[in-house]
Amino acid sequence: MRLKKVKGAAEKIASHQDIAFIESTHPNKKWNEVFGNDNPIHIEIGMGKGSFVLGMAKANPDINFIGIEMYDSVLVKALERVLDESEAVPNLRLFQADAARIEDYFDKASVQRIYLNFSDPWHKTRHAKRRLTHENFLKRYETILVADGSIHQKTDNQALFEFSLASIANHGLYLDNISLDLHNSNFEGNVMTEYEQKFSSKGFRIYRLEANRKPKPPKIKIETE
Amino acid sequence: MRLKKVKGAAEKIASHQDIAFIESTHPNKKWNEVFGNDNPIHIEIGMGKGSFVLGMAKANPDINFIGIEMYDSVLVKALERVLDESEAVPNLRLFQADAARIEDYFDKASVQRIYLNFSDPWHKTRHAKRRLTHENFLKRYETILVADGSIHQKTDNQALFEFSLASIANHGLYLDNISLDLHNSNFEGNVMTEYEQKFSSKGFRIYRLEANRKPKPPKIKIETE
Repeated sequence: MRLKKVKGAAEKIASHQDIAFIESTHPNKKWNEVFGNDNPIHIEIGMGKGSFVLGMAKANPDINFIGIEMYDSVLVKALERVLDESEAVPNLRLFQADAARIEDYFDKASVQRIYLNFSDPWHKTRHAKRRLTHENFLKRYETILVADGSIHQKTDNQALFEFSLASIANHGLYLDNISLDLHNSNFEGNVMTEYEQKFSSKGFRIYRLEANRKPKPPKIKIETE
Repeated sequence: MRLKKVKGAAEKIASHQDIAFIESTHPNKKWNEVFGNDNPIHIEIGMGKGSFVLGMAKANPDINFIGIEMYDSVLVKALERVLDESEAVPNLRLFQADAARIEDYFDKASVQRIYLNFSDPWHKTRHAKRRLTHENFLKRYETILVADGSIHQKTDNQALFEFSLASIANHGLYLDNISLDLHNSNFEGNVMTEYEQKFSSKGFRIYRLEANRKPKPPKIKIETE
């Protein structure tokens, strides 16, 4: 994403410490204290303007959501959306942080699920290590995920998805619910990101996968014929 | 594939024992003796009318190819193609056999590569065990593959490819060179099957993967920008 600098973003974020954290104010891994309960924690890494994580938080009040974003000029847009809500969203926090240091912000085995939506594909081979499904990141995710935790990825970028499938599989995580055309599948309950709405409406395919730390038993499907 | 019974197919196959084997005439695993050399062996399971395996054999004279097909009415079409060649193809044999018994026909660790092209997707969940990338088949393939052997799959069937990716990854094989749109990729040297020509010309995507018993070191790619 090409970023415009947003004047006053840092100040605005700093003035809403009940909702948004930055690296210097993060709660030293004590997220349960922030939320005031022991509900499962789902994080989105690279939440952009926050539509997805906000939609998920509203739809799942018994799960705590943390939207993580590296850039204050982007996070402030998500903050504005949360502030625009008619009611508070008590199970949602925003956090300006670098995913490369994710282990500094979360306890081992403390996160139930990690969402990666429309991450930067870093299409040049020499930048492969920056892709959020590179094995260096997968190792970090495994550290903070609970034993039956999972990673859910969506992207419209074919090359990133090809890379992710191999990277995740070869790292020893278990693949499940792969969809090579999400919007023409029978997947239910999809919450769209801003980017997804835009690109899907242009006819691009959306790819999706789930990666689990433990294999899941096969599902019993109801057959349509 | 809907099969038409071909009159005299079994007799025609039986009359060309220099090229085509059936289950009662197969060479008791001694394929090196059939070919008269110790070149690597690549097999195609479900070769259909044989365009792919014939094209590969002609392009790779130092590899021995065996095209396997369950139905004599299909295998005889491949046999007719081989017989129509202006020159003999000494590194190609055809074999009418059931893939579910593949271990009965090949020694342990004797096959370098297995090709699965446009296999029957068996789209009903209750038929999943018949898919050629079901773990029951993968176990058989692992037995006959050499330690650095691999499986190469192509299909236009999205559901089969989604199934295959997860099945192969979760079985512990290593994924490589995944392509979600083969004909719009930079993959070189693709030999098309009859089915592939037909469906690609209709605009369907062709999916492709490689599954390796051992992980491959990352490739150094030449970047285009």
